[in-house]
Amino acid sequence: MQSNNVVEMTINQLKEHGIKLTETEKLKVEVTDFGLGQQFTVGLQLFTYINTDRYCAKELVLFPSQTCPEHKHPNQNGQPGKQETFRCRSGRVHLFVEGEEKKESDIEPPNKDTVNYTAKREIILRPGEQYTIDPNTLHWFQAGKNGAIISEFSSTSDDASDIFTDVRVKR
Amino acid sequence: MQSNNVVEMTINQLKEHGIKLTETEKLKVEVTDFGLGQQFTVGLQLFTYINTDRYCAKELVLFPSQTCPEHKHPNQNGQPGKQETFRCRSGRVHLFVEGEEKKESDIEPPNKDTVNYTAKREIILRPGEQYTIDPNTLHWFQAGKNGAIISEFSSTSDDASDIFTDVRVKR
Repeated sequence: MQSNNVVEMTINQLKEHGIKLTETEKLKVEVTDFGLGQQFTVGLQLFTYINTDRYCAKELVLFPSQTCPEHKHPNQNGQPGKQETFRCRSGRVHLFVEGEEKKESDIEPPNKDTVNYTAKREIILRPGEQYTIDPNTLHWFQAGKNGAIISEFSSTSDDASDIFTDVRVKR
Repeated sequence: MQSNNVVEMTINQLKEHGIKLTETEKLKVEVTDFGLGQQFTVGLQLFTYINTDRYCAKELVLFPSQTCPEHKHPNQNGQPGKQETFRCRSGRVHLFVEGEEKKESDIEPPNKDTVNYTAKREIILRPGEQYTIDPNTLHWFQAGKNGAIISEFSSTSDDASDIFTDVRVKR
């Protein structure tokens, strides 16, 4: 499928849930398959509203059962890494963070890849629910069967510094 | 009108535009008349999603033609004051910031109070449009005839440090 179609699907999913982008903004929707070539299995679509040297806000769009691979935002130069709040706007989000597994999840890592998906503490977010991920904490997330939209509020975003568990990932 | 009713109106306005709050969150909706006793003329309704020592995100709800009075977020202890991005989600926002008046506005300050409303550079925000207000910059804003919802993304919020032009304001 063409990347243009993925952008269009993203814009439509946002629109369906009352989130409007201007025509100029529509040209800035980001699509990534993390270099793994399986967009609809391991991929993410996003739009960044603002990213200053102090704060950042984005919408993250996930297609049905699509997974964003495990990564963390490391501390840098003695400063804490990115802190981020995920707020579910639509659909359902299965967020996994480092920490004790409280209950076995119904969700499997993509391609049953348990090597590159190590965080096992599941937090389920439904519309209106949110969770704040501490800096330097491994996390990955997968949408439910109807996809999901996540509003992300955070400190400054610097994708280049992210550390992915799967060394094949290219962001 | 009871404050309870104002809260209910706020929750309904958010819901109409697809923004869901949990039952616990509904109890934390804030209503302020800035101590001036004219809620529907000079007032603001808001909900804070998150406010850490690094970033903050809120929804600001305005009723038809309601005004948030002029204020600024001053620099403190040598650190820059709050920087904030207003993104219009619904309705229309007339935002006035310090700076050159480009065109005479159709909008009047509440009670024609030109003494306490000095910022004259008008920025009109429609759904999907946004504007970032620099720290230490006087600004005030008024909703259009159908009210408005504004998503605010910002650095840490500390209402207590705000400086209002109208010395009668109590936040």
